[in-house]
Amino acid sequence: MKASDIREAFKLAERGDIISFAGGFPSPETFPTEAVGAIAEEVAKDMGATSLQYGPTEGLYELRAIIARRMSAQGVPCQPEEVLLTNGSQQALDLIAKVTVDPGDVVIVEKPGYIGGISAFGNYEAEFMGILLDDDGLRTDLLEAELRARQGRANGKPSGKVKLCYVVPNFQNPSGVTLSEERRRHLVELAAEYGFAVIEDNPYGEIRFEGSHRPHIKSFDADGHVLYLGSFSKVAFPGLRVGYVVGPEEMVRKMAIAKQGTDLCSSSFGQKLLVECEKRGLLQSHLQSIIEVYRRKRDLMIEALNEYFPKETHWTYPEGGFFIWVTLPEWMDAKEMLPRAVAEERVAYVSGGAFFTDGTGKNTIRLAYSQAPDDWIVEGIKRLGTFLKKEISRRKSAVSVV
Amino acid sequence: MKASDIREAFKLAERGDIISFAGGFPSPETFPTEAVGAIAEEVAKDMGATSLQYGPTEGLYELRAIIARRMSAQGVPCQPEEVLLTNGSQQALDLIAKVTVDPGDVVIVEKPGYIGGISAFGNYEAEFMGILLDDDGLRTDLLEAELRARQGRANGKPSGKVKLCYVVPNFQNPSGVTLSEERRRHLVELAAEYGFAVIEDNPYGEIRFEGSHRPHIKSFDADGHVLYLGSFSKVAFPGLRVGYVVGPEEMVRKMAIAKQGTDLCSSSFGQKLLVECEKRGLLQSHLQSIIEVYRRKRDLMIEALNEYFPKETHWTYPEGGFFIWVTLPEWMDAKEMLPRAVAEERVAYVSGGAFFTDGTGKNTIRLAYSQAPDDWIVEGIKRLGTFLKKEISRRKSAVSVV
Repeated sequence: MKASDIREAFKLAERGDIISFAGGFPSPETFPTEAVGAIAEEVAKDMGATSLQYGPTEGLYELRAIIARRMSAQGVPCQPEEVLLTNGSQQALDLIAKVTVDPGDVVIVEKPGYIGGISAFGNYEAEFMGILLDDDGLRTDLLEAELRARQGRANGKPSGKVKLCYVVPNFQNPSGVTLSEERRRHLVELAAEYGFAVIEDNPYGEIRFEGSHRPHIKSFDADGHVLYLGSFSKVAFPGLRVGYVVGPEEMVRKMAIAKQGTDLCSSSFGQKLLVECEKRGLLQSHLQSIIEVYRRKRDLMIEALNEYFPKETHWTYPEGGFFIWVTLPEWMDAKEMLPRAVAEERVAYVSGGAFFTDGTGKNTIRLAYSQAPDDWIVEGIKRLGTFLKKEISRRKSAVSVV
Repeated sequence: MKASDIREAFKLAERGDIISFAGGFPSPETFPTEAVGAIAEEVAKDMGATSLQYGPTEGLYELRAIIARRMSAQGVPCQPEEVLLTNGSQQALDLIAKVTVDPGDVVIVEKPGYIGGISAFGNYEAEFMGILLDDDGLRTDLLEAELRARQGRANGKPSGKVKLCYVVPNFQNPSGVTLSEERRRHLVELAAEYGFAVIEDNPYGEIRFEGSHRPHIKSFDADGHVLYLGSFSKVAFPGLRVGYVVGPEEMVRKMAIAKQGTDLCSSSFGQKLLVECEKRGLLQSHLQSIIEVYRRKRDLMIEALNEYFPKETHWTYPEGGFFIWVTLPEWMDAKEMLPRAVAEERVAYVSGGAFFTDGTGKNTIRLAYSQAPDDWIVEGIKRLGTFLKKEISRRKSAVSVV
């Protein structure tokens, strides 16, 4: 249901006179279309018997091998058999839910948390345990306290089993924050102690502008408690719909059986195209180039926020990825305000309440800097700042009249 | 579970010395790779902002419009808003099941029926009502009798609601038979009377070798009881994973919401590539060329069956599509025999029991002529005929000894 908020916002982005920070899409200006075109031709012409044909449900072995090598280099020793390719990582979320979640099971989610993950689990009638995050990501101390309290309560009455913990550890969607190394370790300890699986969803991790990469949560995972989700949608091209999950071979097999009933297999063409892009070094050079682009866009937006936003607001500072998270004065209702922001200042955002499972977060908004052209970022933040200042002064007049 | 039979058989096909009639894939020799390559280059180079980007959950509007025009020309008046694009029609089956099937609901399936459909509904804990088919497809007279009898029984005790009837009306997988026009009408009448939806799954319909096209079941549908499923996997290229469902706008909206939680959207690249192939007339010329190819393969297999198969067997005569269905003597167990057929004669098939929901059909096999090179078809049928004759004479000796 709440996903509809985002969809409506996306539609606004299609109106030419509106500056929208709603959609967290990659910037199409970054796509190396010439180079991809030449490779796409080869993939169809010389590899058509593979690229145009049905492929294995688990994905093309050569792409699974590329991912396994990459994961191994990043501290997660891994075989191709532990990799399942999916239609973007959204499908991985759906398949995990399909295979593991029974109605009433509890899924731990971040507050705020990625809406696509929340809706994937919600579709299988999961209950949610929302845990706040701060500038270092999920508050694992709060999670531990909640798990303990729950255990105490459970002695009296039956309650749903805590099955999964869903986190986006790097440059989180929607908040932009990154989970600290200490909390990553802690989370894996909690998973082992309380017997739940951690879903580490990492579509943005490689798009780091500064500072050093945190180790993957899965790198601390000795007992197969962590399922790692990756994607080519942000670092390469979402239109190919290629994501992946890395986990114990048995889980990969179960998910492959579920995938077979879901869509038989993913696009061979998209997979083969990525294999050939990788072989030619195009993925690596593309990543370098988008890091530059998105760092510049992040800087522009942060500068504009500093210049144009009212002092009553504050925001996160992402070290990578696509998003900045803004907290407005408590009395503000971002969802209710959105139509006025569009009508009065022709600027759009995603209201933050959609990312909370408990009805809170009304005074928050997500801003994506990934897609807007540079000059629009500055102009749009200026418009939004103007709008917010107007709202604040309207409120002040109303209060002083009373 | 039973889908694993087919998968095992597919694996055999990878061994170079085995002639396999197991996999119902299109023949890769037919792919016009040169032409597709040139279009693929353009699609990435000149249309990358669309083809490499996320697309709408419902699919690219221009492809929905192409399908709507085509359906309208085929007797099913249709707007683009009534079309949802999916990752092959397997995903349409999964989404329909997700949106409509509650555990214990009854789904009417053909005996034998397409395994992918059966498993899609089985995943959502449907119960099955299997109805036999003959050379004119599903025996709607038997279906009507069963529905009546069920209604009578239901007066006494509660039983699952009959929600869906799943049929592959043209050149059915696995049997190759086609549903008569009279039964198409009858099926729609039964759907209206008993309040279930018909899923008309038509991946092969356009690949007709002779005779005239039957009207779509949906063309008799005045009240939105029929969901039509189409696919580009057999008439074009399965590696792109593009299928579609045509149905009432409200149902399309519901399925789009379910799809959003499942994988956000399908591959824009695959969709855009098909749009451009269509614009250049490539899909039409490709269809003409594959009709020739598969007709020749069908003829070769039928001739070889006449020449080499024992008189105790009989088979269907498909007017299109990919499959011939063989019935063996009742005492034969095709699944149990398969490893011997591979070991002794290096030939493989799919044992038919997998296509039945009630444990029957042990003495049946599915032969696909779509993928094997021409000379292999003759040689493979000769080998299989030799094997079957050996089995029959072994049985005769055993019986006469007793």
